[in-house]
Amino acid sequence: MSKFGVLGTGAVGQTLASKLVDLGHEVMLGSRDAHNEAAQKWVANTGQRASKGTFADAASFGDIIVNATSGNGSVAALDATGPGNLAGKIVIDVANPLDFSQGFPPSLTVCNTDSLGEQLQREHPRARVVKALNTVNMNVMVDPGRVAGEHNLFIAGDDDRAKAEVVDLLGQFGWPAARIIDLGGIMAARATEAYVLFWVHLYGKLGTGEFNLALQR
Amino acid sequence: MSKFGVLGTGAVGQTLASKLVDLGHEVMLGSRDAHNEAAQKWVANTGQRASKGTFADAASFGDIIVNATSGNGSVAALDATGPGNLAGKIVIDVANPLDFSQGFPPSLTVCNTDSLGEQLQREHPRARVVKALNTVNMNVMVDPGRVAGEHNLFIAGDDDRAKAEVVDLLGQFGWPAARIIDLGGIMAARATEAYVLFWVHLYGKLGTGEFNLALQR
Repeated sequence: MSKFGVLGTGAVGQTLASKLVDLGHEVMLGSRDAHNEAAQKWVANTGQRASKGTFADAASFGDIIVNATSGNGSVAALDATGPGNLAGKIVIDVANPLDFSQGFPPSLTVCNTDSLGEQLQREHPRARVVKALNTVNMNVMVDPGRVAGEHNLFIAGDDDRAKAEVVDLLGQFGWPAARIIDLGGIMAARATEAYVLFWVHLYGKLGTGEFNLALQR
Repeated sequence: MSKFGVLGTGAVGQTLASKLVDLGHEVMLGSRDAHNEAAQKWVANTGQRASKGTFADAASFGDIIVNATSGNGSVAALDATGPGNLAGKIVIDVANPLDFSQGFPPSLTVCNTDSLGEQLQREHPRARVVKALNTVNMNVMVDPGRVAGEHNLFIAGDDDRAKAEVVDLLGQFGWPAARIIDLGGIMAARATEAYVLFWVHLYGKLGTGEFNLALQR
């Protein structure tokens, strides 16, 4: 069992945090404000192995960090973890830098020659950033069986051992290792984040986020 | 049988033009220069039902137009078709606005709040632009059986009757209608063009362009 710091108290953060608790891990849910109401409720409803704190508290607590903040708040959230709290730790980045300010469809605030995953890795060179899970809806993240067939997940990161640990964790979530496709270094976060611009149109078409794609050769 | 004007004499244009001729259609391959060498060779090798000309010649000849020019040359190519030559005609836009000038991975020259498909529709409001086939390799475009399984194709366009005709044509290429997903108006070209930023990383990973994705629910 591991200790996790989950940054972000929105639906994605709570979904991931609850799954990790269900799996027997200890989880601290981190937010900007230590008295965050959503985090308080989550702790009260979740019970044992669940706690809350600031971004810095959660990053200090966790052996593995999950960035589930909104894409536009992710750089600030990771900066708020404080010096050294991410050093040597795996940071699973599930966020997408989407801008919904102009309505549907959203835009990416960073794309083409950069990505959120790369930004976070650049700003925290001692963190071991692994982009993962950002291509599926939160329910599918923690329960891939909700979608039929041999659908795939795509990961990216510069640290191969960190990616192997993430593949193991994803296995606990229900993702067989054979269905996880390693796209290479963290630069490939550009690929999976750009994919989300396609995903949102599929979501609009299907009227549900409970779908995924399967690579066919 | 129909008359097609295929704009672009590169590998994609030639592949599509040859497939259309094989299916019994008449095809004029259009290029900037009426004496384009690739087009001359294609006509010589293809024989009956194959001809060549300028972009304007091909657009005038075809009842259906295929834009298979490079993404960065597409606006100029369609402008070169001359006034009225696209009016009322289906324009199947298979191009992607990729910029390879910085090497791999490429960037999109237009994205987020716009797309090449939308640009072409805006500049030629009387054309009936249908974005299609831009999410797969040219060999897969004309022979989807090269990839196993029930993989999908995604189309977008403002004119429902034009999309229905394109679905019929794609059926001739081997794409069952049930595997073609209509994402909506031409704005959804943003989705399928952004997807290509993901596709190129899969291509880099797999070492082949002969793959596709299947939507799973």
